[in-house]
Amino acid sequence: MDRRISLITLGVADLARSRRFYEKMGWKASGPTSEDVVFFQAGGMILALWGRDSLAADAGLSDKGGFGGIALAQNVASPAAVDAVLAEAEEAGGRVLKPGHEAFWGGYTGHFADPDGHPWEIAWNPGFTILADGSVKLPD
Amino acid sequence: MDRRISLITLGVADLARSRRFYEKMGWKASGPTSEDVVFFQAGGMILALWGRDSLAADAGLSDKGGFGGIALAQNVASPAAVDAVLAEAEEAGGRVLKPGHEAFWGGYTGHFADPDGHPWEIAWNPGFTILADGSVKLPD
Repeated sequence: MDRRISLITLGVADLARSRRFYEKMGWKASGPTSEDVVFFQAGGMILALWGRDSLAADAGLSDKGGFGGIALAQNVASPAAVDAVLAEAEEAGGRVLKPGHEAFWGGYTGHFADPDGHPWEIAWNPGFTILADGSVKLPD
Repeated sequence: MDRRISLITLGVADLARSRRFYEKMGWKASGPTSEDVVFFQAGGMILALWGRDSLAADAGLSDKGGFGGIALAQNVASPAAVDAVLAEAEEAGGRVLKPGHEAFWGGYTGHFADPDGHPWEIAWNPGFTILADGSVKLPD
């Protein structure tokens, strides 16, 4: 298996509502986006939105609802940028799960949930380098 | 909000078991990996493993267990590569959720679950371009 991820798909209850939320947050739908599925280019990978029932059935999984033990994160360049993205998420119809605060690992972090409750951590981590193209590199 | 994802964190029940699974699949731990958390460089982003309880608490979410409506996917260069990765996952201690088959969207796809049940789709999609660095681009 190669060491890369091509797509992350978020299962959603109302595709139009979720698309509006991500578009308000600045994401741009492209590719084979349709009434059934939305694709956003995210650096060298793709973030997709699809019906949660379809996603579970496609993977052959049953779905009890709720959190499933996967969280997405975006690293930003400063603590102020963390607070700015959390405020943007609230204004776009998301929910702030944890406001910005100093993290136990030495940075500054906060969480929001998208309209389906999918968690995003927005973090400033002085130990992780953000390259000019937005990609993030672990220290060697 | 920038249009990129820095990290995906998978909540796990047994960090050592999950780390062994991903290492058998060819992933390489690096960065501030410890007994509590594992980081894998994944192209321009990071795949992390962390205790599922910690992940839920960190995001301020309750966790009923099971699938949470998020699936990861890796696009590969051929139908044969789909079958090869699924076989590798089974040998490494994963579970094939759906063997390789022709997809309704015109490609070839299958799913496996990692030791915690997190779903990975392995897909050959003739409509998505895989660049030399492994990144994937939506058509314009």
